[in-house]
Amino acid sequence: MGGDNAPQIVLAGANIARQRYPGVRFLLFGDAAKIEERIRKLRGLADTVEVHHTDQVVQAHDKPSQVMRGGRNTSMRLAIDAVKEGRADGIVSAGNTGALMAMAILVLRTLPGIDRPAMTSFFPTMRGESVMLDLGANATCNAKNLVQFAIMGEVFARTVLGASDPRVGLLNIGSEDIKGTEPLRQAAQILRETDLPLRFQGFIEGDDIATGVVDVIVTDGFTGNVALKTAEGTAKLIGVFLREAFRSSFAAKIGYVFAKRSLDKLRVRTDPRRYNGAMLLGLNGVCVKSHGGTDALGFATALGVAVDMIRQSVNKSIADQVAQIAGRWAEENTQAAVS
Amino acid sequence: MGGDNAPQIVLAGANIARQRYPGVRFLLFGDAAKIEERIRKLRGLADTVEVHHTDQVVQAHDKPSQVMRGGRNTSMRLAIDAVKEGRADGIVSAGNTGALMAMAILVLRTLPGIDRPAMTSFFPTMRGESVMLDLGANATCNAKNLVQFAIMGEVFARTVLGASDPRVGLLNIGSEDIKGTEPLRQAAQILRETDLPLRFQGFIEGDDIATGVVDVIVTDGFTGNVALKTAEGTAKLIGVFLREAFRSSFAAKIGYVFAKRSLDKLRVRTDPRRYNGAMLLGLNGVCVKSHGGTDALGFATALGVAVDMIRQSVNKSIADQVAQIAGRWAEENTQAAVS
Repeated sequence: MGGDNAPQIVLAGANIARQRYPGVRFLLFGDAAKIEERIRKLRGLADTVEVHHTDQVVQAHDKPSQVMRGGRNTSMRLAIDAVKEGRADGIVSAGNTGALMAMAILVLRTLPGIDRPAMTSFFPTMRGESVMLDLGANATCNAKNLVQFAIMGEVFARTVLGASDPRVGLLNIGSEDIKGTEPLRQAAQILRETDLPLRFQGFIEGDDIATGVVDVIVTDGFTGNVALKTAEGTAKLIGVFLREAFRSSFAAKIGYVFAKRSLDKLRVRTDPRRYNGAMLLGLNGVCVKSHGGTDALGFATALGVAVDMIRQSVNKSIADQVAQIAGRWAEENTQAAVS
Repeated sequence: MGGDNAPQIVLAGANIARQRYPGVRFLLFGDAAKIEERIRKLRGLADTVEVHHTDQVVQAHDKPSQVMRGGRNTSMRLAIDAVKEGRADGIVSAGNTGALMAMAILVLRTLPGIDRPAMTSFFPTMRGESVMLDLGANATCNAKNLVQFAIMGEVFARTVLGASDPRVGLLNIGSEDIKGTEPLRQAAQILRETDLPLRFQGFIEGDDIATGVVDVIVTDGFTGNVALKTAEGTAKLIGVFLREAFRSSFAAKIGYVFAKRSLDKLRVRTDPRRYNGAMLLGLNGVCVKSHGGTDALGFATALGVAVDMIRQSVNKSIADQVAQIAGRWAEENTQAAVS
């Protein structure tokens, strides 16, 4: 178990998730003595868990390459192995992101037809929620990667977000065809010209993310990571400015008292813990990364994301969709060769 | 004159700027009859302007390549020519961004030692204001471009923002040396290892922009454009959520009445018009792009940015700095060749 406050928040999070998602069982990997001591304090959790002892952990600053070579007995690796061997349906970790991605890709491998997995998460928007990928698994992407992300994101929005006919957009710096990088222009062309079962809306810009003009925002991992963190930073900045404003005069302080209940609801609505849990989509197995600094509630959200993915068979849907498209592509190419 | 509400907001903006910056004179390019009719209504403006008639304008959807070939008599081109010929010290336009960049680069050319100009603007932060470049002039950048942007941004922060020893950061997706794209890693190495008169803080991430951990944020035009627009979109989203919160109950409405004055001050503080005016840094001449949809106050801010750049001799400082560094680089290389 990893993260800033493991195993406490992991176990407390599991205890919340156990009640939210009846029937779910947890395999816990880590220091058995510590885990069991804590479990005794969380009534009811003991019946839903199975503890697997290891004293090796991936540290926050371990390099992925290091961990891949020497980390075979770490709690992270053992949890991934459990997914690989079918003893678990998915892994949720609050540990080292780079190590988790590297080991999950190495052990679980990508789904047939998917070259690279994508870190995927939710964004609150004016219309509800959108899903954005990649958020950092691949600093650079080619057109094929982006098209695969579009397909994965569409399936995810349909199955987990419940969008009936999700709109997909490519993040760019202008809406004209000539804008942006070569991979983006190529990906747009493929998405436009190939007969995919997907509602492609073309290019969107950074300020379109929050309006919810599309349900799925496709981008390379570098841009997605910067956009996600810039949005988080901007929200924090406005929060600081707001607190200052409410403290700046006696009248403002009174105003805050009256508005407090509504502002608290807004705080709940934009609570980062509600959006905790980034999915590494495109692997043979469910892999969810929780923020390292989250609390029990946030970790329970991440567990919920994994449960949703498992119960909605997201990976099977992605594989089916890709297989169908691959068939269609092959057919189109054959026709092109014949004509 | 271009922009969504030209020439009205341009002239009203000039009338505000005339009072804020005594001694400034304006050359106005556009439909003389319309401009003069409007000037008659703005008392005092007539004495500070010189009207140059043309009935050709760059339209919002004209392609840069088109305008560069056929746009010699457009108001935008004539204004740029006036800078080139020394009849004006700088150009401010609310028109087509792509056309302005393309024509300004073609006519004014870059400063000696600068390969590409960078679109540059201010960001409000927890510590005050930072400057970020490039925001969209160059979708892809090599390491040399990024290093030149760092130098230009540092000079700008020192001269215009008044930062005494500006800290410079490279926008990346992690702070470790191995993170990010090849140009970023190379640029970081140059900025670290070359003895530049510049306080390089290394890599920063998206959420560091708003904290103000650095005064100058260096990035390629694609990433910068997405980050800027994502920040704008997030701020708007929170604004919408806040308005909903203040309308959601009777108590919240009363709270708003009490807090209104403080919240209005906050609105002024984060008013996009305060940050209007993106500078195309690195050219032989001052070139400022105003938002097309701004109002008179916003356009006056953009004019103020140009006045600051001219009065602080920003371009001369950049050229001096680059020349000095070029000398040092040559020296280092000679020593390396000798030793």
